[in-house]
Amino acid sequence: MTTLHDAQRRGFASDNYSGVHPEVLAAIAAANGGHQSAYGNDVYTERLQEVIRGHFGEAAQAFPVFNGTGANVTALQSILPRWGAVVCARTAHIHVDEGGAPERVAGLKLLTVATDDGKLTPELVETEAWGYGDEHRAQPLALSITQSTELGTLYTPAEIQALTDLAHSLGMVVHVDGARLSNAAAALGIPFADFTTNAGVDILSLGGTKNGALGAEAVVVLNPDSSAGLLFSRKFNMQLASKMRFVSAQLIALYEGDLWQRNAGHANAMAARLRAALSDVPGIEFSQDTQSNGVFVILPEGVAEPLREHYAFYDWDAARREVRWMCSFDTSEADIDTFAALVRAEVAKHA
Amino acid sequence: MTTLHDAQRRGFASDNYSGVHPEVLAAIAAANGGHQSAYGNDVYTERLQEVIRGHFGEAAQAFPVFNGTGANVTALQSILPRWGAVVCARTAHIHVDEGGAPERVAGLKLLTVATDDGKLTPELVETEAWGYGDEHRAQPLALSITQSTELGTLYTPAEIQALTDLAHSLGMVVHVDGARLSNAAAALGIPFADFTTNAGVDILSLGGTKNGALGAEAVVVLNPDSSAGLLFSRKFNMQLASKMRFVSAQLIALYEGDLWQRNAGHANAMAARLRAALSDVPGIEFSQDTQSNGVFVILPEGVAEPLREHYAFYDWDAARREVRWMCSFDTSEADIDTFAALVRAEVAKHA
Amino acid sequence: MTTLHDAQRRGFASDNYSGVHPEVLAAIAAANGGHQSAYGNDVYTERLQEVIRGHFGEAAQAFPVFNGTGANVTALQSILPRWGAVVCARTAHIHVDEGGAPERVAGLKLLTVATDDGKLTPELVETEAWGYGDEHRAQPLALSITQSTELGTLYTPAEIQALTDLAHSLGMVVHVDGARLSNAAAALGIPFADFTTNAGVDILSLGGTKNGALGAEAVVVLNPDSSAGLLFSRKFNMQLASKMRFVSAQLIALYEGDLWQRNAGHANAMAARLRAALSDVPGIEFSQDTQSNGVFVILPEGVAEPLREHYAFYDWDAARREVRWMCSFDTSEADIDTFAALVRAEVAKHA
Amino acid sequence: MTTLHDAQRRGFASDNYSGVHPEVLAAIAAANGGHQSAYGNDVYTERLQEVIRGHFGEAAQAFPVFNGTGANVTALQSILPRWGAVVCARTAHIHVDEGGAPERVAGLKLLTVATDDGKLTPELVETEAWGYGDEHRAQPLALSITQSTELGTLYTPAEIQALTDLAHSLGMVVHVDGARLSNAAAALGIPFADFTTNAGVDILSLGGTKNGALGAEAVVVLNPDSSAGLLFSRKFNMQLASKMRFVSAQLIALYEGDLWQRNAGHANAMAARLRAALSDVPGIEFSQDTQSNGVFVILPEGVAEPLREHYAFYDWDAARREVRWMCSFDTSEADIDTFAALVRAEVAKHA
Repeated sequence: MTTLHDAQRRGFASDNYSGVHPEVLAAIAAANGGHQSAYGNDVYTERLQEVIRGHFGEAAQAFPVFNGTGANVTALQSILPRWGAVVCARTAHIHVDEGGAPERVAGLKLLTVATDDGKLTPELVETEAWGYGDEHRAQPLALSITQSTELGTLYTPAEIQALTDLAHSLGMVVHVDGARLSNAAAALGIPFADFTTNAGVDILSLGGTKNGALGAEAVVVLNPDSSAGLLFSRKFNMQLASKMRFVSAQLIALYEGDLWQRNAGHANAMAARLRAALSDVPGIEFSQDTQSNGVFVILPEGVAEPLREHYAFYDWDAARREVRWMCSFDTSEADIDTFAALVRAEVAKHA
Repeated sequence: MTTLHDAQRRGFASDNYSGVHPEVLAAIAAANGGHQSAYGNDVYTERLQEVIRGHFGEAAQAFPVFNGTGANVTALQSILPRWGAVVCARTAHIHVDEGGAPERVAGLKLLTVATDDGKLTPELVETEAWGYGDEHRAQPLALSITQSTELGTLYTPAEIQALTDLAHSLGMVVHVDGARLSNAAAALGIPFADFTTNAGVDILSLGGTKNGALGAEAVVVLNPDSSAGLLFSRKFNMQLASKMRFVSAQLIALYEGDLWQRNAGHANAMAARLRAALSDVPGIEFSQDTQSNGVFVILPEGVAEPLREHYAFYDWDAARREVRWMCSFDTSEADIDTFAALVRAEVAKHA
Repeated sequence: MTTLHDAQRRGFASDNYSGVHPEVLAAIAAANGGHQSAYGNDVYTERLQEVIRGHFGEAAQAFPVFNGTGANVTALQSILPRWGAVVCARTAHIHVDEGGAPERVAGLKLLTVATDDGKLTPELVETEAWGYGDEHRAQPLALSITQSTELGTLYTPAEIQALTDLAHSLGMVVHVDGARLSNAAAALGIPFADFTTNAGVDILSLGGTKNGALGAEAVVVLNPDSSAGLLFSRKFNMQLASKMRFVSAQLIALYEGDLWQRNAGHANAMAARLRAALSDVPGIEFSQDTQSNGVFVILPEGVAEPLREHYAFYDWDAARREVRWMCSFDTSEADIDTFAALVRAEVAKHA
Repeated sequence: MTTLHDAQRRGFASDNYSGVHPEVLAAIAAANGGHQSAYGNDVYTERLQEVIRGHFGEAAQAFPVFNGTGANVTALQSILPRWGAVVCARTAHIHVDEGGAPERVAGLKLLTVATDDGKLTPELVETEAWGYGDEHRAQPLALSITQSTELGTLYTPAEIQALTDLAHSLGMVVHVDGARLSNAAAALGIPFADFTTNAGVDILSLGGTKNGALGAEAVVVLNPDSSAGLLFSRKFNMQLASKMRFVSAQLIALYEGDLWQRNAGHANAMAARLRAALSDVPGIEFSQDTQSNGVFVILPEGVAEPLREHYAFYDWDAARREVRWMCSFDTSEADIDTFAALVRAEVAKHA
């Protein structure tokens, strides 16, 4: 097979438009050759457990899966009885981007809460965390938050601790959708455990794909008492890779050393660079804080389309002309500088 | 990440114990770099469509997915109403090896039929294909067969045509679990279309992983009138890869040229070589024909365990000491010859 | 079995706290004796079809079921593909009172919209009716409204027409949760068809239990092109009565003559009487219009508990001391007058 | 509503073709009037608990539901994790008569075993009770048997004890589909507990409808440690009656005194009378023992159709001309004698 695309062209549409980091490809190659037991009984999946324990504590267990939706749905199902429901933000990926998988595949009901910035607070959780014991109400027994959020914002460790304290006091189990957990850790500048395991989180979806993997995520159980049957549910949820060594190898490549941090930190820095480059442009309104690798901005009318001829990006809320610019591990400083200049010029035309 | 395993050690446990063929790895690398639209809107997935049409006819459409269970369940769900049931062999992968995914994830009922050799016949199908219009009976509206079967046997094109004729006359849609479709095509020595599209098959699960891919399968729709909603169900069944270019690239690597045939033909030849090498050993009983890449054999008591110290393989029916030896694209002639000698010696000890 | 309860005691907790109207009991007795084909192949279910066609038009088909949740879930499932979602009010019974049955049993995703009075408008529907063709978004292909609403309010025929016009223009099918459809018809003073069939509604859940039946509801298909497989889905949703003649007899008793109207009209009148009796009491705030058989009121602190010693009723929104008083077919004028006097006295104590 | 059917006409099609026993209707009337808390918080449901404890022991708990499919599916779901499977006979109602509800609604996989007489044995159970801990195999964690069976046969208490001993030794929970449990108890002439609670059964579906109720069944938990969440699952499985007092009243009417025994014993006796009346007719072959209220017989060619002009009944296995004659609580001796004479005459014509 020959290369069919322009391997030099990049944009700001999504961090999953990027490809595979060379170190991840090298890890796949290193895991190749010979035979290894299928379905996770291999030395790479075993090694991954050590790597994960190093980040998340001795009780942590990793269940590699194919994608983020698979990780989220399987994780949430494992912490809920059949009558359970999940309190989450209305902007949560599980609510808006998973085609109804939580409901259709796992029978989970979502109880959604509107937020300004993608972040739940104890007060917001309480608006849906009630009705315990009443069989007419799907029981709100799980809380799911996203770190970093779909809006590029971050929870502090203290904010997460406040949420897990409330949740646990109500008998809820806490899940973090960590498709971009590395971006959060890099931005916060603290170890993963400080805002997960040590902040009361019970289970998480750990991302790889958006940070330079080919396709690798994992359900990571932090509190084994809170989760049941993952061995089985990963299988029946169709998330069990036969040649799992190659999924685990990708995650080892990211998390064994500091590749997770280099990639995510770079993406975050590129988002900050873009914001800084445009912060003095009149007519542009930043609609969210830029705390990780996404920049959310409201553009003057007529600006978005000409820009898209050069760089792809998505509308976030078309009604108010809000767009999202995502940076990735492979976004270059030149990408940012060229794009910022284009934005500045286009905005000037429409002033 | 460094290599942690013995890349020279192979066995006969399963064709998914093997790794990735170098040409598949090269294709992944060729698809890397730059940004490509996620979720299938990329040039590799587009190119894959041409490749698939080349094999299966102009109406064929490929939906790449992660694994065989995902392909089977998503394909079957797309051809059935919510009240439909699937007639299949009791040995079918969907019945014995998918952890209940068809039932739990897709709400499908399986109506299973016992067979001697993993192959259904029109007469066997008729034992479960009845009760149409009766709401008390899950409606048998799909037939699923496996080619090559879980027992290493093959359907001829005429046998498949007879099954699809019956099925269509009853209003059933026909699915082929083709996790090893390449082994079948290589063994039959005919084009894929001759025993699928042109024999009345409506939809199939096309394998890649067991034949040298890292992890790549596809639902292939042959008769678009028989299937609905795959775009959506692939997503909600959690089988939609974000960086799909790399799944498609693997399938292109296999199916664009003759890699599928070289790999599968080699695996078949190794199975034939193993059978031939042991055909004159008294005390060994071959329990199935060796028509593709698996050898099923009943061993004398005490023989299996010593052999396993050298080469891994699975019991198939422990009660009668039946074991399965699977050959793979990377099985060498030396593997076969060494193993056959070991078997011969071990059987002699127990004579 | 002897009577174990006080058959004279009534309250305002719910219209399903009441019992069976004597004419309904008489119908059950009239359908008794001899053998009738089970599962709906009986003369009473046949007769019911005529009755329903009389109210809802010649295309209407009734599928008797056990309860309202069964009717709603089965109706909605029948109008949606597996990838469909339902736009509904956040106060809808399907969202707040069905224990997650739509999600768990039918795999349906609900897209909920906040309202002031339980009523959707085209503008509100549009906030969730978007994203068609995008497989990441559960497809909003059904609209479900409730008539009369959970807040005792009513849609006018014109309001329903505006909703069905919008919905149909978007490819959505329209369902009405009519657990209290008789209360609506009696209050509006118009035939059922005027605000259902002739206002563009495609399917509805027709109530019986809350209006004097023992336990009888029906899915009523108004537009047969919009619904599929109800014969089968009623069965697999466990809503198919074996002795269906007795379910159908109850519905015949209600809808053949004017019992539906007498019962519902009376309940509505009692609610109006209660409101009128209290309309001049200072310190009481009516939180919703009283358009059918429920009165929603915000009470001064300390008033609700003493009242409950005499008459049962539920908190609606405890945080703001809002309670719900439901009237039923068997609520007497004396009940209203006694209760109103109690309320007046208790409020006076807390003034 | 007026009577529309011939209340004197009966047949042998099914025990659910019959109507409601007068004592059951009287119980419904006795429970009427006034208001009672909905959804089971009423004095009749409370009284039912005592009645059930009287039959099944102090730990027993009854959850009234609408129908047998609802009872079976809800009971089985409550004893299984999401990865569980049910071993049952291929003739089991859950497999052949519930439209796939166990799979579609509850995500349960059934592992079916062929039997001669509808009865499982420990040896038969062992053919499917294996693979524990292997995530590829749906875990066989429940055993479901039917008493009396779909073929009119009975398990002895010792046979049930042998099954529960095996099941418990494997970690399985045991369910009895007791749609006709009264027929079994009446035929065995022993208390219910002797072949359920005291024989190791954990949970059962207790029938009412086929034995003279209008529509009333219950999940009865015998071993509370084996079952979880029934309060919630009954609701989300759409089996929670709002006016539950009337469901409970029916069950009280049957089980408080000896109505269950009078009705079931009579139906059994009528079946025995029919068999005795025909036992000397050459050309008739009884295909199953007549141990409860069903007679299974293979008729000479041409006999069934003329008989059906007088009395309805079903083919059981049309291929071998096997038919089923079910007797009911209201089958009269005259019905039997008239029918037996007709059969005798018709067989003579075809001799």
